[in-house]
Amino acid sequence: MDDATRRLRVVSGHFRVQKAQSAQASGVPFDVKELQRLLDHDNHEHRQKMKEFMNDDLYVPQYDISLADERELALQRLKRVCRAGFISVSDFRTNPFRIFAAHEVAALADPSMGTKMTVQFNLFGGTVLKLGTERHHGPFLRDMDMLDAVGCFALTELGFGNNAVEMQTTAVYDPATQEFVINTPGSLAQKYWITNSAVHAQWAVVFAQLCVGGRQEGIHGFLVRIRNPDMSVCGGVRVEDMGHKMGCNGVDNGKLWFDNVRVPRTALLNASSDVAPDGSFASSVPRPRDRFLRVADQLLSGRLCIAAMMQSGSKLALTIAFRYAGSRLCVGPSGRSDTPILDYQLQQRALVPLLARTTALAVGLNYVKERWAAASGFVPGQAVDPVTATEVVVLCCAIKPLCSWNIEQCGTVCRERCGGQGYLSCNRTSRSGPLIPTHSPPPPPPPRPPLPRSPQGGDALSLLGDLALLRRLMVVREGRLVRRLGAAMDAAGRAAGGSASEATFETWMKRESDLVQGTALAFAEREVLDALLRALGTDPQPGANPAAAAACPPPPRLSGGVAGVLRGVAVLFALRCVEADLAWFVAEGELPAKAGRSVPEAVRSAVLALSPAACTGLIESFGIPDHLVAAPIAGDWARYNQVDNKGELFGADV
Amino acid sequence: MDDATRRLRVVSGHFRVQKAQSAQASGVPFDVKELQRLLDHDNHEHRQKMKEFMNDDLYVPQYDISLADERELALQRLKRVCRAGFISVSDFRTNPFRIFAAHEVAALADPSMGTKMTVQFNLFGGTVLKLGTERHHGPFLRDMDMLDAVGCFALTELGFGNNAVEMQTTAVYDPATQEFVINTPGSLAQKYWITNSAVHAQWAVVFAQLCVGGRQEGIHGFLVRIRNPDMSVCGGVRVEDMGHKMGCNGVDNGKLWFDNVRVPRTALLNASSDVAPDGSFASSVPRPRDRFLRVADQLLSGRLCIAAMMQSGSKLALTIAFRYAGSRLCVGPSGRSDTPILDYQLQQRALVPLLARTTALAVGLNYVKERWAAASGFVPGQAVDPVTATEVVVLCCAIKPLCSWNIEQCGTVCRERCGGQGYLSCNRTSRSGPLIPTHSPPPPPPPRPPLPRSPQGGDALSLLGDLALLRRLMVVREGRLVRRLGAAMDAAGRAAGGSASEATFETWMKRESDLVQGTALAFAEREVLDALLRALGTDPQPGANPAAAAACPPPPRLSGGVAGVLRGVAVLFALRCVEADLAWFVAEGELPAKAGRSVPEAVRSAVLALSPAACTGLIESFGIPDHLVAAPIAGDWARYNQVDNKGELFGADV
Repeated sequence: MDDATRRLRVVSGHFRVQKAQSAQASGVPFDVKELQRLLDHDNHEHRQKMKEFMNDDLYVPQYDISLADERELALQRLKRVCRAGFISVSDFRTNPFRIFAAHEVAALADPSMGTKMTVQFNLFGGTVLKLGTERHHGPFLRDMDMLDAVGCFALTELGFGNNAVEMQTTAVYDPATQEFVINTPGSLAQKYWITNSAVHAQWAVVFAQLCVGGRQEGIHGFLVRIRNPDMSVCGGVRVEDMGHKMGCNGVDNGKLWFDNVRVPRTALLNASSDVAPDGSFASSVPRPRDRFLRVADQLLSGRLCIAAMMQSGSKLALTIAFRYAGSRLCVGPSGRSDTPILDYQLQQRALVPLLARTTALAVGLNYVKERWAAASGFVPGQAVDPVTATEVVVLCCAIKPLCSWNIEQCGTVCRERCGGQGYLSCNRTSRSGPLIPTHSPPPPPPPRPPLPRSPQGGDALSLLGDLALLRRLMVVREGRLVRRLGAAMDAAGRAAGGSASEATFETWMKRESDLVQGTALAFAEREVLDALLRALGTDPQPGANPAAAAACPPPPRLSGGVAGVLRGVAVLFALRCVEADLAWFVAEGELPAKAGRSVPEAVRSAVLALSPAACTGLIESFGIPDHLVAAPIAGDWARYNQVDNKGELFGADV
Repeated sequence: MDDATRRLRVVSGHFRVQKAQSAQASGVPFDVKELQRLLDHDNHEHRQKMKEFMNDDLYVPQYDISLADERELALQRLKRVCRAGFISVSDFRTNPFRIFAAHEVAALADPSMGTKMTVQFNLFGGTVLKLGTERHHGPFLRDMDMLDAVGCFALTELGFGNNAVEMQTTAVYDPATQEFVINTPGSLAQKYWITNSAVHAQWAVVFAQLCVGGRQEGIHGFLVRIRNPDMSVCGGVRVEDMGHKMGCNGVDNGKLWFDNVRVPRTALLNASSDVAPDGSFASSVPRPRDRFLRVADQLLSGRLCIAAMMQSGSKLALTIAFRYAGSRLCVGPSGRSDTPILDYQLQQRALVPLLARTTALAVGLNYVKERWAAASGFVPGQAVDPVTATEVVVLCCAIKPLCSWNIEQCGTVCRERCGGQGYLSCNRTSRSGPLIPTHSPPPPPPPRPPLPRSPQGGDALSLLGDLALLRRLMVVREGRLVRRLGAAMDAAGRAAGGSASEATFETWMKRESDLVQGTALAFAEREVLDALLRALGTDPQPGANPAAAAACPPPPRLSGGVAGVLRGVAVLFALRCVEADLAWFVAEGELPAKAGRSVPEAVRSAVLALSPAACTGLIESFGIPDHLVAAPIAGDWARYNQVDNKGELFGADV
């Protein structure tokens, strides 16, 4: 038996308990496959094939390895996925959902691989595809797909991480040689955090302030070679390794400096702006500052790629925590260690709401993907009005931090709830935590909430199980916060007279940031609830949003079982949103004190309502096969600990 | 110039910005040194000397190193501290505060070193000191102090992490040879997570079920050699490496198995129980089950050691985040990058409350240390009644999770608030996160709250700046929760009739865990506030707790400046406690809706009230010298990024 086979046998040997659980899970009160189809949303066969493809020695996690080896491993893992054709830059033209799906599955195996994937295919590849023209495409598209041409996205500068439009890197056109001269004027202008650049990239899309004939034309992108075919760094380019990070060390982040590097005129990604040989500049975007928004377009789909990867991390952490909690015996009434820790209310109260929220976010993210795809022209013959375009930007900016905060929560809570075992690297409870970007979303434009329905009869507790009432609460919260924020900004503008922009900044950044954050959260959580209601077959705001209706295919008819569990998920998700902001609802008089007091009890009931069998079913609907869970505590951890495993999955044979 | 000197020069070169800040900080409205003395509490000169001692190449953080190197580094760092005499097992007899102080300072440099320290000196050393007798002491005490004898604490078993009293390892006395036979009956009984055992320990205190003449005598500790002087593992002992963890990889955690290992009769730590050569057993503790509590005594001071280390982690994360926020320029009103991110309300709202809570916990922890010391007989001539002893156990169990949850929060928030820079290992924003134990505290016994004072006049906002009112709110919350929990448990007991223990378990673990958690938190937070009030010179419950009064020396007379900032800290700490549980206060009618609505505004005012200068002063009062902050973003990060640093502090020379 060769080494790889032996290793895989040992690894798969750790999952007997889970197999047993699945058997019992016949008690699951709904069709797991049906729910999985709903949550996966698209490219079902593609996802399945990709998961099976990664049932391979190469994708088994390794921990005690060097930084260099970890990076090489991430590259090889990605390369094999690419060579097998599981993702292509051209998918952006034919089937963009396939790109998000590939990200989601990749992140299950290795978030470093997923990060390298998203830079190669979305940021680098997508930008070359959309901002470039035929002269940049041709065979190069296939080289990118096959990872024969590895690229990076050189936007961020050390001094301009959050204000890229102010970047200092320059690209000056020299008509004499018909070249652009790309230069890094100082250390704050070095390109910073650039994924793939430290070791693997031969190419970079470099963003710089374009200067033609002495005129500043705004930020444009250039396709620049940074390494020669022999992987030596090109002349005039300086690459520095950013070294060790708190996580995702398979990603080779680097810093890039350009010392008057000359690139041909054709290096300019010229879909919307171009420079003729004689140095005459033409652009379809009049204002220089607006040109930045155009070149940074891939950041929008990037948010969806990252959100998809985050969701995989949350699903994985929950899968591991629930399986361990079901097999870990703790002290019971008799004082003996005979009670699965999942029987403890403390454990259920911590894990079940996160399970519900993660499921809810999956449905919400699918809705945003559909809106983005429609707005990006993937729904044939559908025109996109500016309002819709703006709404889609807001949706993407809102769903990403929701997924980011959720994985942070899932990672931390699941690690804690697994006790000491949660801290072993091999148990993967929060292995992608440090990767999380945590920018807050910008506040949304005022949505058009339907008239709140009047509250219905019945006692507080049963009322709080009523989705219509819960939605009404969230709509009221959102509407009121949006109006208050609007009023505050208007007042600031009026008071300011001349220097309106300064007053606006003051109010926004220094006085009302709680209101800004609260409004954005209220908007985002209400959108997620609405997506759940649509999935349940009820349009939350009939006719209110034709663009949304046009973008979203009619939801599949759900079986009673799946509808039931999804309703339970929606109720718990909404109740937790209300509980987390309960003081606001009570203090604002939206909930009488009595109802307010009963909310925590309602949450506890909603947690109980999602029975252990239902939770097992939800976990299984995440569809993570054992070889990708690959965490000993999610399997037969006692057996795993009979061998000298050294904290790795490749322990000695049993 | 030799390499070490050069490296140190480079490292120290990164802190110019901070030096500048300190200069400005002349605007700090209080005496930083005075506050530092209050927060440090004891052994001031010792702390100062130890910090200076660690201004050495050996203590400069390293990141991209192998697991083996990281462990060796932690050992060498600890060894040098020990050889210099900064900590001794005997301090438990003469000056236990010195042990906590050494932990606190050690954790600033390397949490792995701190973890190895606490196992060597508190768990292993302290147990040998207290449970052992002359035959175990003598020169061995000095060998432990010098780290010539490295030990571990073999209590936890794989199957009995949270229910150690049920452990399965056995120690059977064989009168024929006058030996104990120590045995691991099965894989769930392997000693698990044992710090120092994988590589460094020659000795272990092994806990096992003692069986003498066929009778079970309960759990006892044995001093067992596990490695020979040449560091080869002793016969019959099996040691396995637990490998890579999510953090603190300098700690060598291992798994221990004993295959009928024979140790001499004198290996029994016999301070309270002993076995005579003929096999007759005698113990000063009648009930076998109670003997476990006796042998696990060091877990109590262990909680204080860990809490002290946690506080260092929180203080370090805050120091780094505040310094970076003061030097990182972001977009301002003009659109240029000219505004320190600390000017953003979002940043202040996130960081300042954590600064206040961490300061408050420092004062609270000092109070618990004093109570523990008094109850452990370090206040000459003071007798300790059982009630006080129980109260001290509860205090230790309450302060540790408070400090654990706080470092989790500080680590996460500070990392997020530093943006991408927060994820670089070298920036240390949450480098000790994964070390955090997160057991919840057991609920406290009902305290004796003073009669709540009636609310005072004035508008809600100013009222909420009133410490007396804030304390009243926290006392009322605690009292009500304690009574409810008591009532629930009584009801359970009555309802159950015969099987009271089972009903109690059901209620405690499966119905009322929110109430249990809430009660414990309310108790702990009120204790912290009371400690702050004592520091401010006002006894929160005059005459109510003579034991506390006897244990605590009269607080030093504070200058107006320090009293002022400490009052600001107390108000913000208490307001955040109320805000975090605001729904409860409003729904319970303890705060009128109007006052409830104004709490967030009161928090924002309290945040503003702690001016930037005050925050700078608080950070400086943590007393972390630059060479222990050792994070580039806390210094001149632009300069740091001019050199090819590879993510290490030992970058190329400038």
